[in-house]
Amino acid sequence: MPDMTAATSPLLTDLYELNMVQAYLDQGEAREAVFEFFVRRLPPRRGFLLAAGLETALSFLKHARFTKEEINWLAGTGRFKKNLLDFLADFQFTGDVHAMPEGTVFFPHEPILRITAPLPQAQLVESRLINILHFQCLIASKAARMVLAADGRSLSDFGLRSAHGAEAGMLASRAAYIAGFNGAANVLAGQEFGIPIVGTMAHSFVQVHGDEMKAFEAFARSRPDNVVLLIDTYDTEAGARKVVELAPKLNKDGIALRGVRIDSGDLVAMSKKVRGILDAGGLKDVVILVSGGIDEDVIRKFIAAGAPIDGYGIGANLTTSQDAPTLDCAYKLQEYGGAPRRKLSEGKQTWPGRKQVWRSYDKNDRMNGDTLSVETDEPTGDPLIAQVMKAGHRIGATPRLDEIRANARRNLAQLPEPLRRLEAAEYPVTVAEPLKILAQQADKAARG
Amino acid sequence: MPDMTAATSPLLTDLYELNMVQAYLDQGEAREAVFEFFVRRLPPRRGFLLAAGLETALSFLKHARFTKEEINWLAGTGRFKKNLLDFLADFQFTGDVHAMPEGTVFFPHEPILRITAPLPQAQLVESRLINILHFQCLIASKAARMVLAADGRSLSDFGLRSAHGAEAGMLASRAAYIAGFNGAANVLAGQEFGIPIVGTMAHSFVQVHGDEMKAFEAFARSRPDNVVLLIDTYDTEAGARKVVELAPKLNKDGIALRGVRIDSGDLVAMSKKVRGILDAGGLKDVVILVSGGIDEDVIRKFIAAGAPIDGYGIGANLTTSQDAPTLDCAYKLQEYGGAPRRKLSEGKQTWPGRKQVWRSYDKNDRMNGDTLSVETDEPTGDPLIAQVMKAGHRIGATPRLDEIRANARRNLAQLPEPLRRLEAAEYPVTVAEPLKILAQQADKAARG
Repeated sequence: MPDMTAATSPLLTDLYELNMVQAYLDQGEAREAVFEFFVRRLPPRRGFLLAAGLETALSFLKHARFTKEEINWLAGTGRFKKNLLDFLADFQFTGDVHAMPEGTVFFPHEPILRITAPLPQAQLVESRLINILHFQCLIASKAARMVLAADGRSLSDFGLRSAHGAEAGMLASRAAYIAGFNGAANVLAGQEFGIPIVGTMAHSFVQVHGDEMKAFEAFARSRPDNVVLLIDTYDTEAGARKVVELAPKLNKDGIALRGVRIDSGDLVAMSKKVRGILDAGGLKDVVILVSGGIDEDVIRKFIAAGAPIDGYGIGANLTTSQDAPTLDCAYKLQEYGGAPRRKLSEGKQTWPGRKQVWRSYDKNDRMNGDTLSVETDEPTGDPLIAQVMKAGHRIGATPRLDEIRANARRNLAQLPEPLRRLEAAEYPVTVAEPLKILAQQADKAARG
Repeated sequence: MPDMTAATSPLLTDLYELNMVQAYLDQGEAREAVFEFFVRRLPPRRGFLLAAGLETALSFLKHARFTKEEINWLAGTGRFKKNLLDFLADFQFTGDVHAMPEGTVFFPHEPILRITAPLPQAQLVESRLINILHFQCLIASKAARMVLAADGRSLSDFGLRSAHGAEAGMLASRAAYIAGFNGAANVLAGQEFGIPIVGTMAHSFVQVHGDEMKAFEAFARSRPDNVVLLIDTYDTEAGARKVVELAPKLNKDGIALRGVRIDSGDLVAMSKKVRGILDAGGLKDVVILVSGGIDEDVIRKFIAAGAPIDGYGIGANLTTSQDAPTLDCAYKLQEYGGAPRRKLSEGKQTWPGRKQVWRSYDKNDRMNGDTLSVETDEPTGDPLIAQVMKAGHRIGATPRLDEIRANARRNLAQLPEPLRRLEAAEYPVTVAEPLKILAQQADKAARG
């Protein structure tokens, strides 16, 4: 069974892609085209980005096929000629892909994916490729900030409900897990990606029982393996005292409480009071989890204030990347029929050609600079881009999600210290001379 | 064939829903529960909200079924007992739904959807219902601001690529169209929802040809019915002059240019220069479309500056609601087994019971105040909430998208003038006495 993303119709594209493919087919323009995907600039409050979404993108490229019904619908619009409909009916991606592995730290203008394919194919896949890569890079980059801020404390994705639709909920769980989150509340993300799923109870559970004590006991007896009780429905301190009162009774039946969750109020002050109540009641091993309005700044503030919080559930701030909900992404033609290309639109120039990024490290294995150049240039460090698809087939094994996550962990550990501290530090990306020369050639050709 | 949303697995939920349903089944807690969905507060820069997503939500409720594979996977996790697995295997929503029609203007604390169902059912559907309603209300509310700002000018959704995944791209197109957008670039939104699809060309099309004139002519001959040429790849004024030069040649072959698009630079200054060039060249009927960083503020600024722009293509600002990418939504238990309920968590109190919203209008048919009360209260205006589903079946016909759009248009026309002007005006929502009394009763019961 293909995954949710791969099952999505390739009609999920912009009309202009079909317009252009129609014209290319009419003109017989099907020479080899090279497009690269990159981010133009860092959004506010981001010092680096984390690559994610490649395997989803490759799955899309592998599975994208138009059904007979879709072709019939397109024909019925009266907008397209037979040559386009035939092309789409037979479509299957046969190009090459070069990319940075998921979990790699990257910076503006560094391509994280390159498509090399006959022009109509490379153009057709644009909209959905951007849609897939943009979102997961966005979320992984946001999640990485929380992971760095949390400094080993547990982080869970609670953001399905505020994610922008079904796929956003799924791919946010995936991207956050790659960046180092510990789990997600999203059950389908557990099934589809094998992400550890986590969950407690809602306020409605307590309200149904009216009596908190009854609600806590009923929950513990039904979910004895992982009892986390939500204690703030009415009065948080009173809730904590009920937990202390209930614990021995449950212990007698072999049920150990794992934690409590607080979702409202002054979480620093309340977590200290609750910790005091639990400790005094002999529940030193019961953890305190919090949720509600958490982001990397809140986590750092709470840690600095000495809040005894063991884990954070994060919703909208994670799954919508609320402070910066988009990246300025581009999928640009860099070469066509062997010649470099770039556009000159005001403020939107790009670097032409097939590029590589080399990264160098200092003696402590910390990143100390990238070089962006044409891929045939002399290496000045470790290359970040490698071929991952050849003639439509993946090269090598698809990495497991835990391997991708380990790569992200290594990458985050190698960040320069100011970027690890989430400071507004500039990372040096040098554009090498051969690339500048290629850009001049492309401009000269374009200006005629 | 069910639509994309309905085809999504009901495993797309939070684990805590399954935890709670497990406990409810163990306890035999299956009395009638009433949950309402509402927004707690307006985000920054929003004076009103526009309801959207109801038909998508009803489609979800109608189609939600667990497959055998999903039940087997749940069983394999070892987390759930047979009674829950059996319940899920047989699950089908058999409750009632009351709601505001899509396209209705609403305000914080006014419920736009009410679920009345046996408790385990009403709880199980929570996460996905919020996921669906939150996003479409978010986008419709943002789009409505652009529609008001554009004052009749054409608006197109160009935001698939920056939308958060596939479903976000689809449902953003739907919500924007409801709010009054004229079309979307998203082809699948054309197929699934019947939204008019629009599209021009990308810069890559010009770059492929190297020569702008060749590119323009090739495009016009392949897409003769709707020729919109992108003129800013190299030099926008030169591009406009090429359009003037090309037009007579195309005219001879019966091809009329419809418009030009500008995607970069100073769009006010450039649109004036381009208008001048086109007019001087006898192309007074050729429209000017712009894209790139457009939102409601930009539209109003451009109009105030007298920019001769006929239509706007809007991307990330629309499909991510970039300035406010979330609404603070809640789906709360308001009644259980006939008794009103609400939670008392600090700062998160809600209004209990089954509620209605009555809206009154002034002599010019402009909204002049809402009353929020229990549904059995005396009417003080037009009721906004009506029953739309009974025992799992929709009541009456599903409204067509153009009917929903017409409802939104009426609602936006009835807004008080300051809200139509997007000013930070407060709209009066009065909480009626019977609802306050019910809240006191609920609190008294909860405090014991």
